[in-house]
Amino acid sequence: MAVGDLQMPVMQPVKGVRIGIAESYIRYQNRRDLVVFELAEGTTTAAVFTQNSFCAAPVLVARENLSHANPRYLVINTGNANASTGTQGLKNCHESCQALADLTHVNANQVLPFSTGVIGEQLPVDRLIAGLPAALDALSENAWTQAAHGIMTTDTLPKGASEILMLNGETYTITGISKGAGMIRPNMATMLGFVATDAPIARDVLQSLLTNAVNQSFNRITIDGDTSTNDSCVLVATGQAGGAPLNSISDERYPDFEAAFNRIFLRLAQLIVRDGEGATKFMTVRVEGGLHTQECCDVAYRVAHSPLIKTAFFASDPNWGRIVCAIGNAGLINLDVSRVQVHLDHVQIVKDGGANPDYTEAEGAAVMAQPEIGIRISLGRGTAVDTVWTCDFSYDYVKINADYRS
Amino acid sequence: MAVGDLQMPVMQPVKGVRIGIAESYIRYQNRRDLVVFELAEGTTTAAVFTQNSFCAAPVLVARENLSHANPRYLVINTGNANASTGTQGLKNCHESCQALADLTHVNANQVLPFSTGVIGEQLPVDRLIAGLPAALDALSENAWTQAAHGIMTTDTLPKGASEILMLNGETYTITGISKGAGMIRPNMATMLGFVATDAPIARDVLQSLLTNAVNQSFNRITIDGDTSTNDSCVLVATGQAGGAPLNSISDERYPDFEAAFNRIFLRLAQLIVRDGEGATKFMTVRVEGGLHTQECCDVAYRVAHSPLIKTAFFASDPNWGRIVCAIGNAGLINLDVSRVQVHLDHVQIVKDGGANPDYTEAEGAAVMAQPEIGIRISLGRGTAVDTVWTCDFSYDYVKINADYRS
Repeated sequence: MAVGDLQMPVMQPVKGVRIGIAESYIRYQNRRDLVVFELAEGTTTAAVFTQNSFCAAPVLVARENLSHANPRYLVINTGNANASTGTQGLKNCHESCQALADLTHVNANQVLPFSTGVIGEQLPVDRLIAGLPAALDALSENAWTQAAHGIMTTDTLPKGASEILMLNGETYTITGISKGAGMIRPNMATMLGFVATDAPIARDVLQSLLTNAVNQSFNRITIDGDTSTNDSCVLVATGQAGGAPLNSISDERYPDFEAAFNRIFLRLAQLIVRDGEGATKFMTVRVEGGLHTQECCDVAYRVAHSPLIKTAFFASDPNWGRIVCAIGNAGLINLDVSRVQVHLDHVQIVKDGGANPDYTEAEGAAVMAQPEIGIRISLGRGTAVDTVWTCDFSYDYVKINADYRS
Repeated sequence: MAVGDLQMPVMQPVKGVRIGIAESYIRYQNRRDLVVFELAEGTTTAAVFTQNSFCAAPVLVARENLSHANPRYLVINTGNANASTGTQGLKNCHESCQALADLTHVNANQVLPFSTGVIGEQLPVDRLIAGLPAALDALSENAWTQAAHGIMTTDTLPKGASEILMLNGETYTITGISKGAGMIRPNMATMLGFVATDAPIARDVLQSLLTNAVNQSFNRITIDGDTSTNDSCVLVATGQAGGAPLNSISDERYPDFEAAFNRIFLRLAQLIVRDGEGATKFMTVRVEGGLHTQECCDVAYRVAHSPLIKTAFFASDPNWGRIVCAIGNAGLINLDVSRVQVHLDHVQIVKDGGANPDYTEAEGAAVMAQPEIGIRISLGRGTAVDTVWTCDFSYDYVKINADYRS
């Protein structure tokens, strides 16, 4: 059960980006499991990838190709992650890039591959390749919503964000999709995220915008603390909307672009948490009053990863004892616990490190009855702030992961 | 449902240790929730405590008292952890020590207090104090099994270990109890553990034996990754069995004592995992071939904490993809994944970083059908080894923690 505001917006097309979806029968029948993005010539591309040592073949190939050429195509399959598949997995991945390159008359290293699904089984690359012509025939500027469907695995709903930005008389579009519901604690990237704009942005500036946005979005969510082998996030800028190129982070338009990308990425990241496996609650864990951002982040993740807290939220139990226990486990040196305050939305449950004497069970019950809850922790020893988003831990989480072989 | 060999042994009395149990109605009726240990004069005591910043009032007081005096009494209550209770909690804790000291004519700092149960509610210290005379009246050398019952909270069974050691013509007894089933990832101590011997052992030697034993037992188990606010583990040596005092770790008898304590502590620690909340499987995660013990431990804990692995084991799914994903997330620098091997007992599921081509589903199903499973991970880059014990993650874990307010 996904939580809260989940609606797909009108997915504005991005000039210079066409998308084709097809069935390739990688794992399931009757499922459009193959997505191809075509990027117009002149497009710049930035990407971030998983930090897992066992990163998948497509992560290795995409990272390599990106270092040698400007991508013209992205090819994404679901159903098989092509992870922990050794040299055969790499060979299959290269073959899929080569096949798409042959069909489109580009170089193989201008194709970036992405896979998501079961780990450790060889990719049925012949089926993927057989699906490519249909995907290319289907190329359209208006297929973002279908693409959001096409990259889903255990997701229960497609995830998209789109906005139009007016800047110095120019009109720019930013549209993106993401996927993921389990094995989610991105580290430099989410499971899969693809965002495009028609603004003209130089590659190093684009990478800066991407890294910045990811650090405040995909790198601040967790469902189960497991960083996947395939996390990849791509931001492309086609430049087709025209206007002066954004060639420097000192450009006066940079902050506006930055804010817009941050909004889009945050929405895409939060949608992953809202659709977290078995989720019934969406929790915003904000830690303030820290000495530095890192310790705020450590505390927030400690809270967000605690199975005891996650099950308490599933039960709508405002169990502040488990929250202070998690704060105490975050490894902060010389934390003065008597300065710690904890609020659930506006309800203060911990005052000066202990039970808030003014707290009432009725207030606690009311705040916990909501599907979306803010956990605000004040450490009382500095000015740093950080925020992490997570969801609760339900029977259905166990059911989904006991049944599904990821 | 607890897993495997859970039997309480014959709990040999330890000369110089008497135990009294009583009802004090801390939280529940009809439950002997108060345990008093009396230690003979001349007893040496070593202890380790939780590293949680929010450590409980009894942890603060026990640590302080131990630094000033030789303990003569331990007083343990269940039902209330006296954690996150501020200055009132400290006051209540001191009062309980003073009351027991007055009744027994010792100094208050010769009493070590321990509490376990709900976090954040004030201890009903009057009820505890009212129960002390009955506990003292009941003092007996033969109450170890009742004490193991008396310290239980969400435990489904009492946990004890006992052995008799013959050494240089002397006969020594070691007997101990432990408790804990949730909020278990001890850090320098378990939830609660009490072990006694009648051997004469100097205090610094005793502390060395305790620290060593805990590091190979209570500090190597995890149920849910949450270090409790009240973890405490105590080892006492009454010296009543006679013989030459063990005054130095260079004593030739030291290795034999060390081995015996390690066996007792390991048994007590493993019993906690076997009785883990909702546990249906007991898993031994052994990581070998590491550069150093720390990285073996990091990998083992990463595997032992992964909800995806724990739910897969609940489902008897030999999901090696989730295991390699967890290994890859342990943060090892320059891990050559092509050298990683993974076995489930004798069945190799990962060979050279990928699927073992000789693996069969039938073998995997057979090994996963067992209630006790060894996960053996070889990193192939050194000679270090470490082992962590854990359990699976079931519907009942969610149920227990959604229902119980810890």
